[in-house]
Amino acid sequence: MGRWKPGAGDRLREAALSLYLERGFEQTTVADIAERAGVTARTFFRYFADKREVLFDASSVLEEKSLAALEGVPATASALVSVAAVLDSVARMVGGDRELARKRQAVIMANADLRERELIKLTSLSAALADRLRRRGVGDIEAGLAAETSIAVFRVAFSRWVTAADDQDLQDVIRETLDRLRTLAADR
Amino acid sequence: MGRWKPGAGDRLREAALSLYLERGFEQTTVADIAERAGVTARTFFRYFADKREVLFDASSVLEEKSLAALEGVPATASALVSVAAVLDSVARMVGGDRELARKRQAVIMANADLRERELIKLTSLSAALADRLRRRGVGDIEAGLAAETSIAVFRVAFSRWVTAADDQDLQDVIRETLDRLRTLAADR
Repeated sequence: MGRWKPGAGDRLREAALSLYLERGFEQTTVADIAERAGVTARTFFRYFADKREVLFDASSVLEEKSLAALEGVPATASALVSVAAVLDSVARMVGGDRELARKRQAVIMANADLRERELIKLTSLSAALADRLRRRGVGDIEAGLAAETSIAVFRVAFSRWVTAADDQDLQDVIRETLDRLRTLAADR
Repeated sequence: MGRWKPGAGDRLREAALSLYLERGFEQTTVADIAERAGVTARTFFRYFADKREVLFDASSVLEEKSLAALEGVPATASALVSVAAVLDSVARMVGGDRELARKRQAVIMANADLRERELIKLTSLSAALADRLRRRGVGDIEAGLAAETSIAVFRVAFSRWVTAADDQDLQDVIRETLDRLRTLAADR
C-alpha cells in the first residue's frame, strides 16, 4: 500500500480547517498543516494541489453527483421538482458532518478570496444544471430560472443549517426552504 | 468650469468599451482609452479610478437606488412584490441603452476576473436587499430568499434582454421573467 497512513486525507482536512480558524487562512502554510496532521508536506500534496483546494476539492464531485441525480429524475417532472431532487442529493453529500461544514463556512466567510471562489463554484454548478435541464427539454428561461433558484434555496438553507442552534437535517432544511420559496412566489 | 470638455465621461466609457471589445480588456491601457476619447490620461482619472471601474462605477449608485426604491414600497407589500419594485427601478437605470449594455456584457463575459467582479457586486446587492427587508419586518428566511430570488430573476432577464433579436423593454422582460418564476414555483 501507499507510504502514508490510512485516513491522512481526513486528518489533513481537519488540521487545515482548525489552523485556518486559529491563525487565519493567509497565515497558515502547508508545512503547518502537514505538521499538525503528523505527515510530511509531500504527503499533503498527494491529497491536495494547494491549501485552497482543501476547502474546494469536493466541488467537482458535487457537480458530477448533482448532474447524475438529475438523470435519475423522470423526464416528466417539472423543472423545480427536478432541481429539488438535485438538492436532495447535495444534502446527502454535504449534510453528513455539520461541525466540519460549520468550520469550513467560518473559514470561507472570513476571507474575501475564498468567498469569491465559493460563489464562482456555485455559479458554475448553476450553469451546468441549467444546461442539463435544457438538454432534457426544459425551456431556456425555465431552465435558467430553476437552476438559479436552486442555488438561492441552497445558499439560504445551508446558512440556516450551519448556524442553527439545534442539530437539524440539511435535507429537511432545504426542503422546508424550497416550500417557503413556493409560498413566497404565490404571494401577490 | 472644469478643464475637460463636457461629455468626456461618456466618451471615455464608449471608447473603453469599444477598445475592450476590439483588443480585449487586458490588452487595453488607460492611455489607449484616453487617446481614443480625445482626452489626456489625467482626464481619464478624473472620471474613473482605473480601467475596471469604467465597467463597475455605476454599481454603488445602483445599490443606493435599489434600496431607495424599497423604501417607497408600502410596508404591507409581500417580500416578492417589494423586490419586484426594486427590479423595476433597476430596469429603469440600466435598461436605457441596450447597445451599451450589450457591449459591457460581452466584455465582462470574456474575462474571468470581470465575471467574478460582477458576481460579487450582485451578491453584495442581494445581501443589502435582504438586510433592508429584515429591517422592514420581513422574516429572516423570506428576506434572504426574496433577495436571492430577485438576483436570479435579474440575471436570467438581463441575459435574455441583451441577447434578444428584437428591441425589448428591460422592465417588461424582468416582469415576465418574474411571472415565469411564479408559475415555475407553483408546478408540483
